[in-house]
Amino acid sequence: MQEIDMKILVVGGDGFCGWPTALHLSEAGHDVRIVDNLSRRKIDIELEVASLTPIAPISTRLAAWEELTDRKIAFDAFDVARDYYQLVGLLRAFAPDAIVHFAEQRAAPYSMKSSAHKRYTVDNNLNATHNILAAVVECGLQSSTHIVHLGTMGVYGYGTAGMRIPEGYLTVHLKTPQGEEVQKEILYPANPGSIYHMTKTQDQLMFAYYNKNDGLRITDLHQGIVWGTQTNETRRDERLINRFDYDGDYGTVLNRFLMQAAVGYPLTVHGGGGQTRAFIHIQDTVHCIHLAIENPPASRERVRILNQMTETHRVRDLANLIADLTGAKVENVANPRKEDDENDLHVENRQLLGLGLDPITLEDGLLVEVTEIARRYADRCDPGKIPCVSYWNEDRRTPGSGGRT
Amino acid sequence: MQEIDMKILVVGGDGFCGWPTALHLSEAGHDVRIVDNLSRRKIDIELEVASLTPIAPISTRLAAWEELTDRKIAFDAFDVARDYYQLVGLLRAFAPDAIVHFAEQRAAPYSMKSSAHKRYTVDNNLNATHNILAAVVECGLQSSTHIVHLGTMGVYGYGTAGMRIPEGYLTVHLKTPQGEEVQKEILYPANPGSIYHMTKTQDQLMFAYYNKNDGLRITDLHQGIVWGTQTNETRRDERLINRFDYDGDYGTVLNRFLMQAAVGYPLTVHGGGGQTRAFIHIQDTVHCIHLAIENPPASRERVRILNQMTETHRVRDLANLIADLTGAKVENVANPRKEDDENDLHVENRQLLGLGLDPITLEDGLLVEVTEIARRYADRCDPGKIPCVSYWNEDRRTPGSGGRT
Ligand SMILES: NC(=O)c1ccc[n+]([C@@H]2O[C@H](COP(=O)([O-])OP(=O)(O)OC[C@H]3O[C@@H](n4cnc5c(N)ncnc54)[C@H](O)[C@@H]3O)[C@@H](O)[C@H]2O)c1
Ligand SMILES: NC(=O)c1ccc[n+]([C@@H]2O[C@H](COP(=O)([O-])OP(=O)(O)OC[C@H]3O[C@@H](n4cnc5c(N)ncnc54)[C@H](O)[C@@H]3O)[C@@H](O)[C@H]2O)c1
Repeated sequence: MQEIDMKILVVGGDGFCGWPTALHLSEAGHDVRIVDNLSRRKIDIELEVASLTPIAPISTRLAAWEELTDRKIAFDAFDVARDYYQLVGLLRAFAPDAIVHFAEQRAAPYSMKSSAHKRYTVDNNLNATHNILAAVVECGLQSSTHIVHLGTMGVYGYGTAGMRIPEGYLTVHLKTPQGEEVQKEILYPANPGSIYHMTKTQDQLMFAYYNKNDGLRITDLHQGIVWGTQTNETRRDERLINRFDYDGDYGTVLNRFLMQAAVGYPLTVHGGGGQTRAFIHIQDTVHCIHLAIENPPASRERVRILNQMTETHRVRDLANLIADLTGAKVENVANPRKEDDENDLHVENRQLLGLGLDPITLEDGLLVEVTEIARRYADRCDPGKIPCVSYWNEDRRTPGSGGRT
Repeated sequence: MQEIDMKILVVGGDGFCGWPTALHLSEAGHDVRIVDNLSRRKIDIELEVASLTPIAPISTRLAAWEELTDRKIAFDAFDVARDYYQLVGLLRAFAPDAIVHFAEQRAAPYSMKSSAHKRYTVDNNLNATHNILAAVVECGLQSSTHIVHLGTMGVYGYGTAGMRIPEGYLTVHLKTPQGEEVQKEILYPANPGSIYHMTKTQDQLMFAYYNKNDGLRITDLHQGIVWGTQTNETRRDERLINRFDYDGDYGTVLNRFLMQAAVGYPLTVHGGGGQTRAFIHIQDTVHCIHLAIENPPASRERVRILNQMTETHRVRDLANLIADLTGAKVENVANPRKEDDENDLHVENRQLLGLGLDPITLEDGLLVEVTEIARRYADRCDPGKIPCVSYWNEDRRTPGSGGRT
C-alpha cells in the first residue's frame, strides 16, 4: 500500500456498500468526501419498509464519525444523474485522485416491478455513470483521477454453460475473408438477467469508450452478492451501523433467509434452489475497493476488470446451512424470475487475491449475522415484506409464489 | 409482399430517413402515423444552419401528401424519451403492427461537440429506445407489434482488422473448466467510434434483453451512411422535398463533397482519406424498411439483425469520383476524429438482398445529386458551415483542421 493520502470522492456513499467504504478509506487516512441524493432512503419510504438495523441520518453518522476519530467526511446531497454542473463544480474544487461510483439503483427485483421502475433504473444508472465520465473529461482530470466502479457478476449471465468466467475479457479467434486467423480480446459477452443487470452491461460500454477515446483510467469491480452487515468501522458505534435490507426487493437471498429464521418462518427457496450465486462479505468489499484504489491500473490500455467475489453457493445449500444454524425449516416456492433452475458458476478471482485479499468465509461469519443482527433486531422486522412480489414478466406472475433469491 | 394493410407508427418520422419512409409506407397502402418532437429542426437553429433543400413545415408536408394522394398521415409532436405516458396512450389507441424507431440524435460529430452534447445524445437515445420497449410491454403488445430500429454499421467499429462483418452475430468457441468445448453465438463485439455510435451499441443490449425476457419481436437494421436526397414519393412535389444536411456536424462525407464542389471549394479529405465507409441510397433505405416490416422475423428466438448497406468506398476514392464528375480539386486536412487512417471494410448483406433489395449504385445516382440538389440549391449554402469543428478529444483539436468524413 502506498503512503500518500489521497482525495477520494465516494458517490453513493450513504448506501450499503458506500457508507462502510467511506469510513474504511477515511480510517486509512484518506481525505474522503461523499455525494449521495439519499434516493435509497426514499425508496424505503416508497416500499414502506426500513433497514432492519436502525441506521442514523447521514448528518448524525458523519458527526459520530468525527466525534470518534477526529476525521471529517464532507457531504453533498445531490443527484449525479441530474445535477451535472454541481458535479462539475465539485470536481473542479476537490480534484479527487479517485472517484468510487456506487450511485446506481441496485436491486434486480425493484428494477422489474413496473415500467416506471424499469425506466427509473435505466435513466438513473446510465446518466449517473455517463455524467461522471463526461465531468472528469470536462474538468481535464483524465490523467489524475482514477474511476472505480461497482459492477456485478450478473453481467456475465448466470447461465454460462459451465464455462469458467474470466476477469472481464475473453480472447476469440476470427477469420478474415482471406482466411487469416485474427486474435481479438473482447469484453466477455453480456447476458444480463434483469433491467438492473442490463444497465451494468451498458455501463461497461461507456467505460470502454471513455478509456479508448479519452484515456480515462477505470477499474470495474464485478461484484458478487454482498452479505454481512458490519465492518470494523461501522461496528464502533451504533450511530455508524450499516443498513440491512431484508425486503423482497432489496434483501438479497442470504438476508432473507436470516430474517425468516429469526422470525420463525420457513426459508423460501425459489424453484429447486439450484441457482448458483457468487458472494462476498461486506468487510471484504471495503478491503477490495481499498486495494483497487491504492493499486491503480498500471496502464490505460484498457479498463481493468476484477471479479470481486470469494465464494459460490447454490441457493438450496445456503438455505440448508442457515437451517442447520438456526433450526428453521426450508420450503420450495415458485420462482418469480425468468432464469434457469440449475446453473453452475466457476469464477476467476485471482487479481484481488493477488493484491492481498484474504477472504472471510460464510462459515466463519454467518453466526455473527444470526446473533448480532437478525435476532437482535428481529422486533423491527415486518414479515409481510419478506416475499418478492416483483415478477420478471407476465408468465412468472404465478399466484402464491413468493420470496426471492 | 403480403396483402394486408398494417398500422405503422413511425417515430422520428420528420427526419431525413423517417419522412421518406413514412411516405413510402403510406403509398404502399399502410396506415401510417408519425411521432416526432422536431428536435432535429431545433438543432438546425442551435447550429445556425438549414437544410440545403427548402424543407416545408411538417403540417405543410402532411397537407400536401393528403392533397396529392388522398392518404392521411396523423402526426403527434412529443418527445418519446420524456413523454412516456403520451406514448403509452398512443400505443393503446393505435395498437400498431409495427413501430419504426428513428428517434435518436444521429450525428457523430454533434455527439462529440461538448459534454452537453454528449449528455444529450446519451440521455435522448437511450431513454427513447427504452421507453418504446417498456411501453410495448406495458401495453401488452408483445405478440402483435414488431419493432424495427435503425442501428448503424458503426457498432462494429471500423477497425475490424480486415474481418468480414457478419449480420450482427458471431459464433465463438469456449472451454469449460472440464476442458469441453462450448459453442456460443454472441452479439458481434462492439467497438464504437463516437458517443453517438456508443448509444447504438447500448441499444443493442436493450433489444437483446427485451427479446429474451418479454419475447419482443425486433429487427435491428445496421445501416451504412445514407446518401441521396429524394425518393419516388418526396420527388412528387417540392413541399414534400427531403432534407439535405451539408454542415460539419450533420452533413455526411458525400454531401459535404457535393456541396464543396457546387460552391467551387476544394473537397477536404481527412488525413489520407484511407477510411472505408459503407453506403446506401435513401431510396434503398425506405425499400429495406418496407421489406423488413412486411417480412417480420419468423422466430422470437433472438433479435433479427440485418446489415443495411450496399457499397463500401474509401473516402479518397469518393472525393476523386466527385472531382471527376464536377472538376473540383481535392485537399487533405487534419482528421478531427480519433480513428485509424486506413481501414478495410468487408460486410455481409445477404439477408436484405435475399428479401429482394436491388441496390442503386453511387455511379448511377451521383449525377442526379449534383444537378438536382447541390447545384440547384447552391445559393442556399453557407460555405462557412461545411468544416467540422467538433473534435473527438483534446489531442485532435489541431488548429486549421476542418471538414468531416
Ligand atoms: N449490495 C450488493 O450485493 C451488490 C452486489 C453487486 C454490486 N453492487 C453494486 O454496488 C453499488 C452499491 O450498492 P449498494 O448495495 O451499496 O446499494 P445502495 O442502494 O445501498 O447504495 C447506493 C447509493 O447510491 C445513492 N444513489 C443512487 N442514485 C444516485 C444518484 N443519481 N445520485 C446520487 N446518489 C445516488 C443511493 O441513495 C444509495 O445511498 C451499486 O452500484 C450496486 O449495483 C452491490
Ligand atoms: N442518416 C444516416 O446516414 C444514417 C446512417 C445510419 C443510421 N441512421 C439512423 O437512422 C435514424 C434516422 O436518422 P436520420 O438521418 O433520419 O436522422 P434525423 O435526425 O434526420 O431524424 C431523426 C428524427 O427523430 C426525431 N427525434 C429525435 N429524438 C426524438 C425524441 N426523443 N422524440 C421524438 N422525436 C425525436 C428528430 O426530430 C428527427 O426528425 C437514426 O437513428 C440514425 O442513427 C442514419
